[in-house]
Amino acid sequence: MFDLKAYLKVKQQRINAALEELWHDHESSPTLLVQAMRYSLEAGGKRLRPVLCLCASEVMGASEADVMPAACALELVHTYSLIHDDLPAMDDDDLRRGKPTCHKAFDEATAILAGDALLTAAFEVLAAAGRCRPGSALKWLEVIYLIARGAGYSGMVEGQMMDISSEGKTITLEELERLQRLKTGALIEASVRVGAVLGGGSAQQIAALGAYGRHIGLAFQVADDILNIEGKPEMLGKPVGSDAAHQKATRPSLTGLDQAKARAVQLADKASDALRIFGNKGEPLVALARYVIERNR
Amino acid sequence: MFDLKAYLKVKQQRINAALEELWHDHESSPTLLVQAMRYSLEAGGKRLRPVLCLCASEVMGASEADVMPAACALELVHTYSLIHDDLPAMDDDDLRRGKPTCHKAFDEATAILAGDALLTAAFEVLAAAGRCRPGSALKWLEVIYLIARGAGYSGMVEGQMMDISSEGKTITLEELERLQRLKTGALIEASVRVGAVLGGGSAQQIAALGAYGRHIGLAFQVADDILNIEGKPEMLGKPVGSDAAHQKATRPSLTGLDQAKARAVQLADKASDALRIFGNKGEPLVALARYVIERNR
Repeated sequence: MFDLKAYLKVKQQRINAALEELWHDHESSPTLLVQAMRYSLEAGGKRLRPVLCLCASEVMGASEADVMPAACALELVHTYSLIHDDLPAMDDDDLRRGKPTCHKAFDEATAILAGDALLTAAFEVLAAAGRCRPGSALKWLEVIYLIARGAGYSGMVEGQMMDISSEGKTITLEELERLQRLKTGALIEASVRVGAVLGGGSAQQIAALGAYGRHIGLAFQVADDILNIEGKPEMLGKPVGSDAAHQKATRPSLTGLDQAKARAVQLADKASDALRIFGNKGEPLVALARYVIERNR
Repeated sequence: MFDLKAYLKVKQQRINAALEELWHDHESSPTLLVQAMRYSLEAGGKRLRPVLCLCASEVMGASEADVMPAACALELVHTYSLIHDDLPAMDDDDLRRGKPTCHKAFDEATAILAGDALLTAAFEVLAAAGRCRPGSALKWLEVIYLIARGAGYSGMVEGQMMDISSEGKTITLEELERLQRLKTGALIEASVRVGAVLGGGSAQQIAALGAYGRHIGLAFQVADDILNIEGKPEMLGKPVGSDAAHQKATRPSLTGLDQAKARAVQLADKASDALRIFGNKGEPLVALARYVIERNR
């Protein structure tokens, strides 16, 4: 039986070490900007996107060291998105992972700039990794393209825009699913695809992993919606019920809690089904799909 | 005698056409996000960074079409930085280029997201250009690296952070110069370097163009400080005197107006001197250095 807990712990430790390594030039006297960037980056996330990226690349036998810069870049992009989403003009959240949000710990201008700098740093890390690996230059350009597409105006940012625009409004289940696929799903799918590309996957393998990523991307957000109702604040690091308070449409608010849970299970199953071509090698990703819907934070 | 006015007009038209081309998929029903991105992008900037990039590449005889995606990406990054700098939590400006700023024309959340999306789109455009040119993949990774470095926490964003932190405080001329080199100079220097790299410049040529970019980058900001005192609001598209109102340290506020003007001329001269190795081919860049300090907007 695959031990996901142990697997996650090892991966998270290595990802955290690689993220810390990014700042080694700034160790002695970090600027206030770098302090704010690191404050949010090191606030204790699950590192799900980097783990998915590494895990997808390992299905094809890639070396962790070769993929790690992309894993780090994904976490930089994710962290920037959290900082900006928490801003007063957006979701106006005071707590994230049990700590004051960036604009509370610093100030609003610093939080905006720390987010901008994290997003930019992601592409610096990716380009630097590609420059050092001339034989894989095209693969790294593909990775940059996938992350920029997943994070930008056709992906995550558009999803956040839809999320804010729909507050207090009635939207259909179809609209909600589209919103959630963009807001959360696009970067998660990109994380898996990036691992597949760097792992040297064939077109068929990349498509299979892409389908997996697409299903767990949506599953992750459905699970998030459920946690926002049923989760424990001490595990989540933020108050529960904030979606309802913001009058946000969520899966449970549109279909009820039971159907939302059934949809999460269905999506995790579809994700696992997409991995059949990999046989036993897909085991860690199958376990991650379960984890995405059964996590408590 | 080189006709800069005619040269600029042609370049600006081609850059604007290439920027419009970016949205051809969204023509029929642009999202609100894309509308906000285009609102700021098409508000009538000088396109100085793209022009510098194209112009630097032409010194080595590069084709404009090959460099244009990088030129566009630079303008996307520049436009994002203006939108975020204008936000209430930052400089809180209502007018930019004679039009309401993005957060005034739309709202604050939309402006934050439009900036985020423009920055991300810059890297999407760069990666897409590199993917289509497999023979130059490494050059495009270098370009992405240069732009990310120039725009990020070691460049423009750090400069903006210093700018905000120093409002109302006394800073030395040395500190001001460092701030301005980061806030404005870093992306301008990157623009020239990107052109040099894509033009296939030798290490010596890239260094010469880098020095040129470094000098005009600072010259541009010194000229901006002077325009904020002596400029005509109808040309600038914003009120004059805002630096003084914000208690911002500027070159003129630290050294007086005459010395600031002398410094701008000195920097433009140094920039031109750096181009000697190119002979007559450097003429457009020499004219641009003049333009940077003599422009009225």
